[in-house]
Amino acid sequence: MNSFGRLFRVGMFGESHGPHVGVVVDGAPAGLPLGVADFFADAERRRSGKPGTTARKETDSPTIASGVFEGRTTGAPILILFENRDVDSSAYEPLRRTPRPGQADLVALQKYGGFNDYRGGGAFSGRLTAALVAAGVIAKKLIRPAEVAAELVEAGGSADVEGAIEKAVKARDSIGGVVGCRVRGLPAGLGEPFFDSTEGLLSHLLFSIPGIKAVEFGSGIASSRMAGSEFNDEIVSTTGETRTNNAGGIIGGITNGNDVLFRVAVRPTASIGRSQHTVNMDTGELCEVSAKGRHDACFAVRVPVIVEAACAIVMADLMLIEQRIPRIFR
Amino acid sequence: MNSFGRLFRVGMFGESHGPHVGVVVDGAPAGLPLGVADFFADAERRRSGKPGTTARKETDSPTIASGVFEGRTTGAPILILFENRDVDSSAYEPLRRTPRPGQADLVALQKYGGFNDYRGGGAFSGRLTAALVAAGVIAKKLIRPAEVAAELVEAGGSADVEGAIEKAVKARDSIGGVVGCRVRGLPAGLGEPFFDSTEGLLSHLLFSIPGIKAVEFGSGIASSRMAGSEFNDEIVSTTGETRTNNAGGIIGGITNGNDVLFRVAVRPTASIGRSQHTVNMDTGELCEVSAKGRHDACFAVRVPVIVEAACAIVMADLMLIEQRIPRIFR
Amino acid sequence: MNSFGRLFRVGMFGESHGPHVGVVVDGAPAGLPLGVADFFADAERRRSGKPGTTARKETDSPTIASGVFEGRTTGAPILILFENRDVDSSAYEPLRRTPRPGQADLVALQKYGGFNDYRGGGAFSGRLTAALVAAGVIAKKLIRPAEVAAELVEAGGSADVEGAIEKAVKARDSIGGVVGCRVRGLPAGLGEPFFDSTEGLLSHLLFSIPGIKAVEFGSGIASSRMAGSEFNDEIVSTTGETRTNNAGGIIGGITNGNDVLFRVAVRPTASIGRSQHTVNMDTGELCEVSAKGRHDACFAVRVPVIVEAACAIVMADLMLIEQRIPRIFR
Amino acid sequence: MNSFGRLFRVGMFGESHGPHVGVVVDGAPAGLPLGVADFFADAERRRSGKPGTTARKETDSPTIASGVFEGRTTGAPILILFENRDVDSSAYEPLRRTPRPGQADLVALQKYGGFNDYRGGGAFSGRLTAALVAAGVIAKKLIRPAEVAAELVEAGGSADVEGAIEKAVKARDSIGGVVGCRVRGLPAGLGEPFFDSTEGLLSHLLFSIPGIKAVEFGSGIASSRMAGSEFNDEIVSTTGETRTNNAGGIIGGITNGNDVLFRVAVRPTASIGRSQHTVNMDTGELCEVSAKGRHDACFAVRVPVIVEAACAIVMADLMLIEQRIPRIFR
Repeated sequence: MNSFGRLFRVGMFGESHGPHVGVVVDGAPAGLPLGVADFFADAERRRSGKPGTTARKETDSPTIASGVFEGRTTGAPILILFENRDVDSSAYEPLRRTPRPGQADLVALQKYGGFNDYRGGGAFSGRLTAALVAAGVIAKKLIRPAEVAAELVEAGGSADVEGAIEKAVKARDSIGGVVGCRVRGLPAGLGEPFFDSTEGLLSHLLFSIPGIKAVEFGSGIASSRMAGSEFNDEIVSTTGETRTNNAGGIIGGITNGNDVLFRVAVRPTASIGRSQHTVNMDTGELCEVSAKGRHDACFAVRVPVIVEAACAIVMADLMLIEQRIPRIFR
Repeated sequence: MNSFGRLFRVGMFGESHGPHVGVVVDGAPAGLPLGVADFFADAERRRSGKPGTTARKETDSPTIASGVFEGRTTGAPILILFENRDVDSSAYEPLRRTPRPGQADLVALQKYGGFNDYRGGGAFSGRLTAALVAAGVIAKKLIRPAEVAAELVEAGGSADVEGAIEKAVKARDSIGGVVGCRVRGLPAGLGEPFFDSTEGLLSHLLFSIPGIKAVEFGSGIASSRMAGSEFNDEIVSTTGETRTNNAGGIIGGITNGNDVLFRVAVRPTASIGRSQHTVNMDTGELCEVSAKGRHDACFAVRVPVIVEAACAIVMADLMLIEQRIPRIFR
Repeated sequence: MNSFGRLFRVGMFGESHGPHVGVVVDGAPAGLPLGVADFFADAERRRSGKPGTTARKETDSPTIASGVFEGRTTGAPILILFENRDVDSSAYEPLRRTPRPGQADLVALQKYGGFNDYRGGGAFSGRLTAALVAAGVIAKKLIRPAEVAAELVEAGGSADVEGAIEKAVKARDSIGGVVGCRVRGLPAGLGEPFFDSTEGLLSHLLFSIPGIKAVEFGSGIASSRMAGSEFNDEIVSTTGETRTNNAGGIIGGITNGNDVLFRVAVRPTASIGRSQHTVNMDTGELCEVSAKGRHDACFAVRVPVIVEAACAIVMADLMLIEQRIPRIFR
Repeated sequence: MNSFGRLFRVGMFGESHGPHVGVVVDGAPAGLPLGVADFFADAERRRSGKPGTTARKETDSPTIASGVFEGRTTGAPILILFENRDVDSSAYEPLRRTPRPGQADLVALQKYGGFNDYRGGGAFSGRLTAALVAAGVIAKKLIRPAEVAAELVEAGGSADVEGAIEKAVKARDSIGGVVGCRVRGLPAGLGEPFFDSTEGLLSHLLFSIPGIKAVEFGSGIASSRMAGSEFNDEIVSTTGETRTNNAGGIIGGITNGNDVLFRVAVRPTASIGRSQHTVNMDTGELCEVSAKGRHDACFAVRVPVIVEAACAIVMADLMLIEQRIPRIFR
């Protein structure tokens, strides 16, 4: 099922080399000011991996095709479309029967009996994260004054992100990275114990971002090596402020009013210039493939804005459920 | 919402000091042999943190209250109840207005306006994992011959689990741990790209287990420090076997037929003998609390069987969706 | 899936001759006063088909097994159990292979491969409506001051309900009836255009009541024979009051602030003293069956309180979605 | 929530005077042959209310924008778009503050705080049924060899449909009608007892069609006036064939292998040439409105193909759940 959410529901569609990718956002309250320009900055951050301050119309300019009227959301489902341009599919035909290591080529073949659109990763393409980011833009507006901010804190195991990428490019190889995220200003009380814990919902959506291999909240993995006396966050006010924040702002699945903190680990880009072994699906023989042309040596640089989107979407849903966002913005 | 799943749907209820905790399992196929004795081994593992080979009737013996007839599932919702016995609530009354650090006491107060059952953690209690484990027993039967096996691989940062716990007990402190899980024999093709990725669904349920602070698949966090040439799993057969398994058996959100591998980090037990600061909710003054009586120094020892349950529940749902489990067992 | 609702979610379980039937109500706000006595009047109406003014403990007295603490809802799932007593299953054994006409015997056999609990209708039993009525009691409290009132307006085609039933009893036959329902005091704006229209959601739940064969809103079937000039409800105030109410208080799927009006048609009781043809599933030969003992000649008399429950459940869910019910009752 | 279904999930969007309306169909198996031409016949039936045998490209020609590759479904979400052309919104501006009787104008204003797109009914427009019909085309292909056939059996209370419409046109008034539907070739065992009864799911979707005011299964309302001995369908074969079909092919919420039969009542068209009272939302004064231009005197003539679509969508979902439709068409 390519949709997610209870009251704020997001559904995605599209393929890398089809006419467009896009998203339906169902359940956004009416009256929220929304225009095409609202999407530019985050779309540019996703495209370039850099903070997007540009106000000019980007290549990845979306069309708002429903749900907005006279500059405000109507309460009806919002359809956002991104056209796919300059699509050259010829490079993918030779790969059709030699699935690339680290890509979804082979599982797509297996799951869909070979009927999947294989060009450019088809429905598995990172291109669909443009749609996710667009939904995130709406969500970020809804949750205000709460704010989500993510950044790449490590690439290839190093804090010198640019240096690490440069090295990878030279080696015709790729690297991954770690993205840290902080949400400020959330109310306490979001999420449910057990199945709809805030961590459960957040991780559900975070792992839908291609290439994420780990999610940790607060002190995360390190917490497994701490003593209880060190880990437990002592409470210092009746509103729930804590001295430390090892829990990452979530206790028992519920936000506790402190900043929500989490980190995601991003694997290295699958497409690399070096040759790798795979199998020819027709002959069963081992063969070699390598990526032609330009590829991100570290797609993790584009991930922070996608993480922000996923996080904002979950928070918007939880805040609607808890009646922390009105049904109509006036 | 305390229910989870699309075709195999699990709903939990109950409080630590109420008459019982339990689970409704909706969507299990008819004809599956099921009896009370099926639950003993896993219930005992959860209770004691040790491999449960016992066949005797345990304290945590469940009642199957619907959905099973003449020793087999009927296709109707299965209700499983665990009675709460020997419940002494008196210890909790003094804590009602001094929320314990590391526990859900304060968020429960905030979320439910003080109407929550505060005794023994109420609806947040780890006691509810008995219900989750019971649902897991049914799921494990459904996914056969696939098999889920989890174990504690580290406690307090050490592979010498018993030694680490002993040290924590002496220090009147607590420790966490790391649980590793492997699923063998799964078909390729489970899960969806993006929102219902196998990782997304698994992590959703894994983070519903109290105390889990991180989930990583395959090489997980380490993958963010690997080169692409090192991380990508080379494909060695047309059925998708790979030379390595850094992806943890999941690519593009879809199982690829290799073992599914993941690890979860468990924080240290919140209740410790040492005193900790908190705040008196009535006066706003700082005060100290410490746990009386016997508490697990490392509740992570009980987590493997709960992880197995969560994992089997997700797999049963995905296998039903992909028609890998029949609607009727004959 | 035997659960229903988005924010106010109801899940049922149990069989006619199992230990009990019951319901889990998930999503009820915290702080709502609730006790066992709240269920007596409606349980009695369902049992006897008569207005239940009795305050004494009924045979169908429920146990509130979770989600209520110190007389108020806690915000956690509420489990309500009804014990099954005086169950004599012996009468059903001979019927196991000769499915009764008008009953679910044969479809249960087909759907569940013969593993269903056949005794007393098993999971198809009207007994489960006790659970539905219990969930309705909670929903009715939530939607206040809105009020749902249903009554039997016709039995066997006659407004003389008692006379019609008497005649049916004498004929060792059964009759059906028509139940009318009115909801007063609802806010305008509940429901969604298209898929989650108020009519769609209401009918979904109404048709889950065994024996309902038709649902009509406002002028219903008669509206198909009216002219537009006659059917359209002229608007007489800016708050949306209309001169007539042919629409039944719902336009475009949305409540318009006028009373919501609908009617359901109930088929005659399936079990009758007269003999009827069916087939022996083992031999394939035609044979005759007839109901032994006492059966309702017109179970429609019990339906109004069930209709009220179904209606209140839907309204509670819609009002929570529209933030017309608070998350905490103080 | 404007989406529906568990495994075969349909989500709609769009407004009457926006750039287009459309539908996302999620969960359709891979490998199903599908092309634009498949949609022509049903789109034409919806447009004209007449059996569509035309093969030429219609005005309402859809674009398949994702989920289909090389003439077959890929298993990814299918996006279908219908462009809105020749849209003249000027007529609606004067109506913005004088809500039309029988239309959703006023409830839209109330529900969305005046931010709704009011032009041509906006998101409430019957135009969206084009999207529903398109989803139905896919569903009809999936459920084969089962077949859904609906027709207008009555208009304005008369079987002489054409005569009745002519009379209404002359009177500058409108009429409603009754649509009957039959599904042949369904397997027994679809649907669930209680909440996901086949009747419940069908009615849920049928009532999402604008203007439907009643749904009845089998003998429907008439069944409430029959004796049990007359209503019960006697079983004549071990596969469940019955002598009569008063139940409409559904018992206990489950299909029994006989034809599924139901009828829906359609109210008269809301827009009529005669003037009707309403209120001016700014002044509170009563005023008169009447529809300008050409309107359907009986939009019920277009409803059969929409009913078929709604029915096929539900059946496709139920058949996927029961594994009666494969995950891959080869």
